[in-house]
Amino acid sequence: MQSRRRKNFFVPPKSAFWYVSTQHKLTMSFLDLLKFDSNGLIPAIIQEQSTGRVLMMAWMNRTSLEKTIATGKTHFWSRSRQKLWMKGETSGHVQHVKQIAFDCDGDTLLIQVEQVGPACHEGYKSCFFRTVDPDGVNFTVTEPQLVRGGSGSGTGTL
Amino acid sequence: MQSRRRKNFFVPPKSAFWYVSTQHKLTMSFLDLLKFDSNGLIPAIIQEQSTGRVLMMAWMNRTSLEKTIATGKTHFWSRSRQKLWMKGETSGHVQHVKQIAFDCDGDTLLIQVEQVGPACHEGYKSCFFRTVDPDGVNFTVTEPQLVRGGSGSGTGTL
Repeated sequence: MQSRRRKNFFVPPKSAFWYVSTQHKLTMSFLDLLKFDSNGLIPAIIQEQSTGRVLMMAWMNRTSLEKTIATGKTHFWSRSRQKLWMKGETSGHVQHVKQIAFDCDGDTLLIQVEQVGPACHEGYKSCFFRTVDPDGVNFTVTEPQLVRGGSGSGTGTL
Repeated sequence: MQSRRRKNFFVPPKSAFWYVSTQHKLTMSFLDLLKFDSNGLIPAIIQEQSTGRVLMMAWMNRTSLEKTIATGKTHFWSRSRQKLWMKGETSGHVQHVKQIAFDCDGDTLLIQVEQVGPACHEGYKSCFFRTVDPDGVNFTVTEPQLVRGGSGSGTGTL
């Protein structure tokens, strides 16, 4: 009776169980919890870890996120130029990745970095250098321009 | 000769000049520098002013931004429900607006707030409560859940 019962169940050896368990873990990678939009993109908020300043927001596809993880430097997808780019590839103002978090809905990334030089292509530390006045209409530039000019490409932060 | 020249130019009275000048100023409102996407939306990063924590990211259309400015409480556009909503309208976890900044490209907002209760509908202070492990695959919940459960709507942060 006991032997018949045993025949009805497959008891895998330990090594096979371990394999299945590992596969399950890989299936639950954070990447699989992310929701890329219809263009395959997800917004990434970039925050300077040492100061808490929000430096910029840019878009990543899965490949640029994987490159960011693999290299430790932020890579994005340029919607205007339709190509992958590394932050600082022309300016030298790279971002060293310290931490990657993702939100409850899995549709936004928050990446902590240490920023070399200004993050903004217009020469400001942060792209958010303009603040709306209390009148809700006008605005004020609220920080110094560290580097004159910039790429002038209008594509954000090269 | 002099009088003929004068007839060729319209010299407005002071009051009219002031009117034109005011109109010009209104034309240069920060709202007109913003680039809403093809759906009329712009991403708004919400940061807690007192701690520097990034709490969430949500989408605004022009109406929700104007309501945010007028009321001093954040309003967003829900893409899933296709309606305007005020943060905390059901949970009471409202956000009091302290400052609004916008980026170099005019396509992202950064809003400083003071947050009542948790920002996340899952009961965490910030929606970014999960951090990717150093292996670049797994992740860890990095903060305590302040309130159990939540709306469970999966729509973000009501």
